[in-house]
Amino acid sequence: MRAAVTAVPDVLDARHGGIDAVLPTRHAGTRKLRIAYELAGPAGAPVVFVAGGISAHRHVAANALDGDAGWAQGLLDAGRALDPANLRILAFDYVGADGSIDAPIDTADQADAVALLLDALGIDVLEAFVGYSYGALVGLQLAARHPQRLRKLVAVSGAHRAHPYAAAWRALQRKAVALGQLQCADEQGLSLARQFAMLSYRTPEEFGERFDAAPTLCNGHVRVAAEDYLDAAGAKFVARVSATAWLRLSESIDLHRVDPARVGVPTTVVAVEGDRLVPMSDAVSLVEGLGLNGRLRVLRSQYGHDAFLKETDRIDALLAGELQAGKQRPSPVHDYNDPIGVSV
Amino acid sequence: MRAAVTAVPDVLDARHGGIDAVLPTRHAGTRKLRIAYELAGPAGAPVVFVAGGISAHRHVAANALDGDAGWAQGLLDAGRALDPANLRILAFDYVGADGSIDAPIDTADQADAVALLLDALGIDVLEAFVGYSYGALVGLQLAARHPQRLRKLVAVSGAHRAHPYAAAWRALQRKAVALGQLQCADEQGLSLARQFAMLSYRTPEEFGERFDAAPTLCNGHVRVAAEDYLDAAGAKFVARVSATAWLRLSESIDLHRVDPARVGVPTTVVAVEGDRLVPMSDAVSLVEGLGLNGRLRVLRSQYGHDAFLKETDRIDALLAGELQAGKQRPSPVHDYNDPIGVSV
Repeated sequence: MRAAVTAVPDVLDARHGGIDAVLPTRHAGTRKLRIAYELAGPAGAPVVFVAGGISAHRHVAANALDGDAGWAQGLLDAGRALDPANLRILAFDYVGADGSIDAPIDTADQADAVALLLDALGIDVLEAFVGYSYGALVGLQLAARHPQRLRKLVAVSGAHRAHPYAAAWRALQRKAVALGQLQCADEQGLSLARQFAMLSYRTPEEFGERFDAAPTLCNGHVRVAAEDYLDAAGAKFVARVSATAWLRLSESIDLHRVDPARVGVPTTVVAVEGDRLVPMSDAVSLVEGLGLNGRLRVLRSQYGHDAFLKETDRIDALLAGELQAGKQRPSPVHDYNDPIGVSV
Repeated sequence: MRAAVTAVPDVLDARHGGIDAVLPTRHAGTRKLRIAYELAGPAGAPVVFVAGGISAHRHVAANALDGDAGWAQGLLDAGRALDPANLRILAFDYVGADGSIDAPIDTADQADAVALLLDALGIDVLEAFVGYSYGALVGLQLAARHPQRLRKLVAVSGAHRAHPYAAAWRALQRKAVALGQLQCADEQGLSLARQFAMLSYRTPEEFGERFDAAPTLCNGHVRVAAEDYLDAAGAKFVARVSATAWLRLSESIDLHRVDPARVGVPTTVVAVEGDRLVPMSDAVSLVEGLGLNGRLRVLRSQYGHDAFLKETDRIDALLAGELQAGKQRPSPVHDYNDPIGVSV
């Protein structure tokens, strides 16, 4: 999802490419694959890995090689905590995102792929791993399986397990795809799945404000106010995502399980009140399980699970604090008002 | 959905049948139709109308003519506030529930059908109308359009409008049916719609308790713990509901709009905290709009929108108070602990 072209200082070093890897997966045997990455920022600067939702990718922000805005552009602009003028930002395309693996993929596989990528790029240790949604799950796996590869983890809108209700919600999305595939209506099925997912990413409060119009009658059927928006979201998704890639990454969220006690690095869990996929109770369980390594930050947002894409100012303020923590700087708790900081 | 056979005192008077009616509808012209009803209880006793969700029907409880348990059996057993030994209980099949109308149906049409039914049965005024979910919407329309036909209304888990988020959720269910119908996979579409709906009727808390098992791999695909339950719910629904009936009644929820100021009778709005279809904010708006006619009762339940089917003891305690109100009895607020009574 690349939007407008953004001016970027061309002094920034940027590389993208792919590394050939052999990945022993948990459920799909040993696979030869190419791990596509993008790395931007001054040579020698600390490296921060940024990972997003299952439909995110390696292009997180505009850089000298690719001036298009990235999916996390608002968090990487000049002056932000993740400003690539000061840090090297690394990101990759998720294993399976190209649709080449039609078998169960696991977040542990993604974490192992991150470790292989770091090996290939000669990066011993990440300054931090910042993961949103699926990226948070991958970060937790990385911190459990390869704790020596990162100094700290920021896990936003993701926990140590898939909640059973959220898992059921995703399972029904996959059934919508299967129903479409049953009769060669693949695009309609994937579109419906995406629309149903949109309801889980957002909140009733947002819909109440945006779509408070009476329904209309269209060809003898009722059409409600949100349908234009949902149809457009479905169509945009179908145009850029393969059904196989989406199905396997969706499943992979539901396979996700990490024992919080095995997470070996300082971890900040950012939970959004109103997130319909990751309930606060799971974020709290995760932080409890992390013990001394864990702390919890709570955001309130009417954007629910999608807050990380929409509340960029507040997420940035929060990251600024977390990325400075441990550098003999005063506690950032009082530097920003919106996020409610709760140390656990 | 009729369950086990229940012993009933055969002294109770019971009638069921149908009346022929001509109904001018809001969106489907003037229709000749048969309104099927059931009436049970001693001749001359006050009449209480009971109406449920869109897949409920006229058989609310076992009676001398039909000993099968009804959909509201737990609320009509001996000793309950709605005990048919003391009251006559009237119920009907919703207009369109037989699948005979493939055009938009409105809750106002349902309310007008109730008025026609009362005319035909020679019932001037109902002691009360008790509506759950869709039944609450129909009750509000009845109280706005025909206030002389009921002394009071109890509206459980329903408000004066469809919330935009809930409307979007239903619209996607209808799209699942359309996707199935596209290629003659009607049953799969309706089943998927029902499964989507189940997520809106229940809560994450309930799913968290019931389905907290790791997913399994089945034919190379991930299957989550709730899928057996959801599949069964879908299959049971498909076996008893026609797609046309369901589609038109689902639409009818989204067409629903009542101006609370036009509701002309004392109305108790029962809202369930955690209901994912009827947010508390809409229940509060409704009660505000009702002015002196309105009061709000709040239930907490992990069953969300389906609390009226599951929390029968608490609903009964609440009804006992409401049906006695105005009869010079002490306020029932202190008679039960679970429901949180808030007079507005």
